[in-house]
Amino acid sequence: MSKIILSFETSSSICGVSVMDNGNLLSLVEENSYRKHNENIADFTDRAIKQSKKLISEIDAIAISIGPGSFTGLRIGLGFAKGLAFSQGIPIIPVPTLLSMAFGLKDNEPSSGIAHSHSKKVFYQEFSWQNSIPKIKDKAKVGDIDQYSSKIKDGFQWNCEDILTDHSRTYNAVPSAVPVGILASIFFDDWIIEKPYDLEPDYIAPFEIRSSE
Amino acid sequence: MSKIILSFETSSSICGVSVMDNGNLLSLVEENSYRKHNENIADFTDRAIKQSKKLISEIDAIAISIGPGSFTGLRIGLGFAKGLAFSQGIPIIPVPTLLSMAFGLKDNEPSSGIAHSHSKKVFYQEFSWQNSIPKIKDKAKVGDIDQYSSKIKDGFQWNCEDILTDHSRTYNAVPSAVPVGILASIFFDDWIIEKPYDLEPDYIAPFEIRSSE
Repeated sequence: MSKIILSFETSSSICGVSVMDNGNLLSLVEENSYRKHNENIADFTDRAIKQSKKLISEIDAIAISIGPGSFTGLRIGLGFAKGLAFSQGIPIIPVPTLLSMAFGLKDNEPSSGIAHSHSKKVFYQEFSWQNSIPKIKDKAKVGDIDQYSSKIKDGFQWNCEDILTDHSRTYNAVPSAVPVGILASIFFDDWIIEKPYDLEPDYIAPFEIRSSE
Repeated sequence: MSKIILSFETSSSICGVSVMDNGNLLSLVEENSYRKHNENIADFTDRAIKQSKKLISEIDAIAISIGPGSFTGLRIGLGFAKGLAFSQGIPIIPVPTLLSMAFGLKDNEPSSGIAHSHSKKVFYQEFSWQNSIPKIKDKAKVGDIDQYSSKIKDGFQWNCEDILTDHSRTYNAVPSAVPVGILASIFFDDWIIEKPYDLEPDYIAPFEIRSSE
């Protein structure tokens, strides 16, 4: 049966919203939106839905890049997605962020990848491939770039240009709501959360917030 | 005309959701939910709406305690509210947090108030009263408790028990989705934002986040 999926990618400086019909892209609004996700997400969603020629009521599920990534970006994306899912009575499909970046490079089948967290810290994960679909080998880790730089030959990097000294045989990944949506279509039944009330972002990174919490 | 308002108070450790009909409380689900707002907000909203005997489609507007307060709490509340508002095509009414705390003490008409931010930092604001309704005299400030402790005689404090040495003539305030909703009913036409796409929380406090952003 055909499934309409609205997907969000807000785990980094990129804010992306896509609408897919059974894994086929109907619309995409995606751009670098550094520190502006909260201001942009509703507008991007509005535009993506309009461009898709679908109605909100036709959306079967919401896919979201669940992390690891930016604390604030993930919060904004998941908060908005939850409100929408709650209001429409539809499920959420959490999609591992690094896996979706790997899938975005499926022609190269990267066996690992790193994404920038902060200062010299990166998120790292390994993948295996079968029939052009990546699987997670072990859960994502966070650590210094030096721990992982030798492990990403034939892997990918995102946003680590400035801290990665040797770029040879490393693919450049970009987070996008497109692979998020396609993976959600493929793993729809396995990953779906019918009542995503208590779904949490997958932060991983140790972080500190100096505010009232 | 009667207005049904769904209200959120997530600016501190308290997570509150209320439903009001023309300023009359229909339902309230509110409790201390320290660092659990993301897990609780959809569930609390579900329960509050069911208890109110209203349908989501009958809600005319969403009121939200907009800050100052916890960065994460405000983000979670506003993110969820935006998703819901977007999905239902309804407006958001941002309610100043300290004003709503003052209004919760309307029998005492506090002329000022402080709410805890972090360590010795507090948010401070002054109010004038007319016909049992508080008005903001000047925008909220953030500073050390010592700057404001002498100014809150006949004022209120929230969560400053441990850092406020002299509690005499200081009322104890509690953030709640009830005064948020009543103020939103009273100032409905003045405060309403029909397209709340780019509405931002009113953080005020300088804070630092050590993560990927």
